[in-house]
Amino acid sequence: MKKIGIVMGSDSDLPVVQKAIDVLTSFEIPFEVHVYSAHRTPAEAKTFSAEAREKDFGAIIAVAGMAAHLAGAVAANTTLPVIGLPVSAKNFDGLDALLSTVQMPSGIPVATVAVDGGANAALLAIQILAVTDATLAEKLNAKRRADTEAVLGKNRKIEEQFNK
Amino acid sequence: MKKIGIVMGSDSDLPVVQKAIDVLTSFEIPFEVHVYSAHRTPAEAKTFSAEAREKDFGAIIAVAGMAAHLAGAVAANTTLPVIGLPVSAKNFDGLDALLSTVQMPSGIPVATVAVDGGANAALLAIQILAVTDATLAEKLNAKRRADTEAVLGKNRKIEEQFNK
Amino acid sequence: MKKIGIVMGSDSDLPVVQKAIDVLTSFEIPFEVHVYSAHRTPAEAKTFSAEAREKDFGAIIAVAGMAAHLAGAVAANTTLPVIGLPVSAKNFDGLDALLSTVQMPSGIPVATVAVDGGANAALLAIQILAVTDATLAEKLNAKRRADTEAVLGKNRKIEEQFNK
Amino acid sequence: MKKIGIVMGSDSDLPVVQKAIDVLTSFEIPFEVHVYSAHRTPAEAKTFSAEAREKDFGAIIAVAGMAAHLAGAVAANTTLPVIGLPVSAKNFDGLDALLSTVQMPSGIPVATVAVDGGANAALLAIQILAVTDATLAEKLNAKRRADTEAVLGKNRKIEEQFNK
Amino acid sequence: MKKIGIVMGSDSDLPVVQKAIDVLTSFEIPFEVHVYSAHRTPAEAKTFSAEAREKDFGAIIAVAGMAAHLAGAVAANTTLPVIGLPVSAKNFDGLDALLSTVQMPSGIPVATVAVDGGANAALLAIQILAVTDATLAEKLNAKRRADTEAVLGKNRKIEEQFNK
Amino acid sequence: MKKIGIVMGSDSDLPVVQKAIDVLTSFEIPFEVHVYSAHRTPAEAKTFSAEAREKDFGAIIAVAGMAAHLAGAVAANTTLPVIGLPVSAKNFDGLDALLSTVQMPSGIPVATVAVDGGANAALLAIQILAVTDATLAEKLNAKRRADTEAVLGKNRKIEEQFNK
Amino acid sequence: MKKIGIVMGSDSDLPVVQKAIDVLTSFEIPFEVHVYSAHRTPAEAKTFSAEAREKDFGAIIAVAGMAAHLAGAVAANTTLPVIGLPVSAKNFDGLDALLSTVQMPSGIPVATVAVDGGANAALLAIQILAVTDATLAEKLNAKRRADTEAVLGKNRKIEEQFNK
Amino acid sequence: MKKIGIVMGSDSDLPVVQKAIDVLTSFEIPFEVHVYSAHRTPAEAKTFSAEAREKDFGAIIAVAGMAAHLAGAVAANTTLPVIGLPVSAKNFDGLDALLSTVQMPSGIPVATVAVDGGANAALLAIQILAVTDATLAEKLNAKRRADTEAVLGKNRKIEEQFNK
Repeated sequence: MKKIGIVMGSDSDLPVVQKAIDVLTSFEIPFEVHVYSAHRTPAEAKTFSAEAREKDFGAIIAVAGMAAHLAGAVAANTTLPVIGLPVSAKNFDGLDALLSTVQMPSGIPVATVAVDGGANAALLAIQILAVTDATLAEKLNAKRRADTEAVLGKNRKIEEQFNK
Repeated sequence: MKKIGIVMGSDSDLPVVQKAIDVLTSFEIPFEVHVYSAHRTPAEAKTFSAEAREKDFGAIIAVAGMAAHLAGAVAANTTLPVIGLPVSAKNFDGLDALLSTVQMPSGIPVATVAVDGGANAALLAIQILAVTDATLAEKLNAKRRADTEAVLGKNRKIEEQFNK
Repeated sequence: MKKIGIVMGSDSDLPVVQKAIDVLTSFEIPFEVHVYSAHRTPAEAKTFSAEAREKDFGAIIAVAGMAAHLAGAVAANTTLPVIGLPVSAKNFDGLDALLSTVQMPSGIPVATVAVDGGANAALLAIQILAVTDATLAEKLNAKRRADTEAVLGKNRKIEEQFNK
Repeated sequence: MKKIGIVMGSDSDLPVVQKAIDVLTSFEIPFEVHVYSAHRTPAEAKTFSAEAREKDFGAIIAVAGMAAHLAGAVAANTTLPVIGLPVSAKNFDGLDALLSTVQMPSGIPVATVAVDGGANAALLAIQILAVTDATLAEKLNAKRRADTEAVLGKNRKIEEQFNK
Repeated sequence: MKKIGIVMGSDSDLPVVQKAIDVLTSFEIPFEVHVYSAHRTPAEAKTFSAEAREKDFGAIIAVAGMAAHLAGAVAANTTLPVIGLPVSAKNFDGLDALLSTVQMPSGIPVATVAVDGGANAALLAIQILAVTDATLAEKLNAKRRADTEAVLGKNRKIEEQFNK
Repeated sequence: MKKIGIVMGSDSDLPVVQKAIDVLTSFEIPFEVHVYSAHRTPAEAKTFSAEAREKDFGAIIAVAGMAAHLAGAVAANTTLPVIGLPVSAKNFDGLDALLSTVQMPSGIPVATVAVDGGANAALLAIQILAVTDATLAEKLNAKRRADTEAVLGKNRKIEEQFNK
Repeated sequence: MKKIGIVMGSDSDLPVVQKAIDVLTSFEIPFEVHVYSAHRTPAEAKTFSAEAREKDFGAIIAVAGMAAHLAGAVAANTTLPVIGLPVSAKNFDGLDALLSTVQMPSGIPVATVAVDGGANAALLAIQILAVTDATLAEKLNAKRRADTEAVLGKNRKIEEQFNK
Repeated sequence: MKKIGIVMGSDSDLPVVQKAIDVLTSFEIPFEVHVYSAHRTPAEAKTFSAEAREKDFGAIIAVAGMAAHLAGAVAANTTLPVIGLPVSAKNFDGLDALLSTVQMPSGIPVATVAVDGGANAALLAIQILAVTDATLAEKLNAKRRADTEAVLGKNRKIEEQFNK
């Protein structure tokens, strides 16, 4: 199975990244985590991205806040799907990171998920792997059914509390 | 090869969709286009999404403006990768569509691209197919090189015009 | 008397929903509360909405945050009045939820109230029931008079404190 | 049948109001249109609102742009449902009108629809009347089915054009 | 000397109002404070505004949050200068209140100050009274000189700390 | 009677200023117009502001776009009421000018009116002069009554057109 | 004298760049213009930036729209001053470009000027060169005086037109 | 070596300024810190700016929040490079300060850095001095290399923790 690469611009992004790691782990997806900054370690970010396909990665999750260039910098150096995960920082609730990540020019897409949406970044990566992996697709379907059951369980509790 | 599904909420979205169609056509990717509204034809949108994997789609591009629920409605009914393409309408320059598309709750990711970014939505879909298709990956790389050449060509013209 | 349906996308919305429940209870309006997610339990959300009129609901309050599709998803399946109650989440103060709820396309209105405005969602539902219920209308008028009195009471306290 | 009142803050709002009038007319709903400004004719706006219930109105649509106080001013003087229709003006795409209309304090709800959403304001008013009017409810359902058919018709045209 | 009227939409605005009161008190300006809501006590708000000039008020400070209609509602009923003081609430940092206060239609101006800017609202009111009151103008000038001195005092401390 | 000073940051602001001039002219208020930039002619802007009171100005309207510092720069040099008139430019619809004008720090208020609200800036200036001028106050009241009549006239036309 | 480098992400940015070129030309500053995209020609953008100091550039102006990463990408590869010039595109009036350019993480500053502010980008570059070049500083001062004269000339025209 | 001037509008900005001071100190750059308000001490702010070049300053960092006019006011009085450092205050996360600082009119640039970006303001100032100072440029390069090493060190820790 192909690996998922996670690149974060700063180790302060770890709480959001951890949500992605937890999802990947629960799906038993192989992954690698790195701290590469688009601005402070551009060479390493580039090398990682440029070699990702041959190193058998299937998708890369790029995590950054503020003027979040990391996902775009990764995407500029690979044609693998790059998932942009904008992170909220001290100001602007991640709006700067969201716009910096999603508003990519024609030719270099970044698949952007919600601000601080670590779990969804991982799920999207798994969905990409599952396009040609029926077992993984079934695992995703099973998680969906479990999520549905969880909501319905909460619904029953709320119904019992309020509806007589 | 798997197909790409394109679902637009209104046929007024066609100018943005056309940019995606042009890219898919140039890559010789099979695709289907539909007009299904999350609100006016929820049943058809759901059926299309729920059957997409077994009908051999590899990814779905969902195109909508304003309170753009279509990508989320599609994503709720499939575990295929869903690419959200927010479209600008009369007011707000597509900010409403962008937030409605990208800020998905945990469990149901939507891979969002730039507002009106039709070409990138298609490229992202192709990148997803190319994860396990080396020929397609090489085609993407070739397009990247062509894009690079195009920029460098423009650069030469600008350099000739301004740098003596 | 017709019932009011309250559907929340997540049980974490309960603090805002509770404000609606308190108002409905004080007006002795029958109501039901459910946790149905537009994305995680789309089938249940649809069934509830589609059957709401025949089950004698008079209006449905749909409560959601982030890319708040729930009110639109409910409205797509009923012609009962749907009241959208956007909820603030970790980022953006509910602006994403507000735009996702209010900017509905032509044909499927959602009656949107203020972000986190649980009490007003319930009052609007009661106002809808009171259109053809003079007793209920009088109760609403009485509450208005009481609210006016409450403000005037606060005014007297402030006047006593500051105006000599 | 109860009437729908339409109050616009300025006759320059007529293009948006016309969309509401067209819907009401097509549903054969009795209505009245007035130009009453919250700021330039506060007395008339108040009198109209205060007398609306006894004059057999079932809901009031209040239409205004910029610091759009009209819906709130109407709602302050009636317990009928008040539908706020924010209108875009020269600057801000109606964001000022949207926030001025929807962010009402507890006690005085305004049922807000999309910026410039004249048709939906009328449909919401009709939905309110239809809560206790089965014939009207069936008319709304018929329009929904017609809207669905219209989308499906457009879908067929797009399918014929693009899907071989 | 003419009085300054302060009208707040809710007694929860008192912390911001207190800053205005402190300034008025320090300038020995006569004032009155009231809690009148544009929506919950529209009659009292109107009466106060309509009678303000004959009751010898020179300006009215109107204080409100969210869909802050109070300043506009006051201004609609008097031709005295009305100072709008937008207040931040739970969401949006007062942006809704600012736009609702400042974006008044032609004919009914509101003199808007910064969000939560209680002191400046009072100073503006005093500046208005001082247009024809040389003694008061001199007091304002004296406060300016004192403010300048205070900044210069802080400057000296910072200079001593950092500049050797 | 005291004069009104109008200072615009650029002569490109003249269309908005003209609306203020028209109002002042119709009220027969003496005024002066100047082009003084906070950044390009800071000395002239300062001198004008510092001498305004002794030159018998009663209020100053400061007109600027983008990073609109002019009103603040004027206010820093006078204790006369300064009316800030933010102007929309190529980008941002005047939001930058609005925030730059209204968000003044404690001690230096600017009485801000709506973006591009030239007429209201003048009306506010006249209201300030009218605090101690009963004749002018009556003229303002007369204009209000005329505005009311104008709205009611438009109302009659709309009523004739739509209400049978 | 050191050269100024201008790098634009796309030749569609030329109208904004031309304003910078005109200023540099009028100051007789040597400059080079290039089209290098952070995403489509990352290698060329990097090489240019990394070699800029040894090639005797004194500052680099980086021009880009949307998710404007170019200035950051240049700044990551040089310690020369990098001036970020955000450009407005079809949506958002350049707000995305502004935030993507200015919100740089600690360690890699970008000196950001106004959206579409081509002339100021060039002036800032010249100011940087003039720190150690008294002749150039005097030229800047002369331009300032000329700008002041231009405003005063416009002021005289406006004064003649309106002040009698 | 030329000095860096730091001017803050209020001593409450010291925490952000301290970050700049720390960087300047670590680079052994001479600097001066002052508290000069554009509005409360305009004369001192002007004098400091006007004399800065002859007093051997190389750049000025201007620090302010809300309607942050300080950088513009400084820039209006010098042709030295002025670095604008917007500071977040109680509301709006510094968006008002950012727009007030960066959206300068043509002729008077302000080199704006991120909201609360004290360290980057200092680094930009040092980069400006380093244009003609090879020793300082090498120090900047050394810091870049150290920053890169720091990121790589964090990367190694993360890799050890997560990648087996």
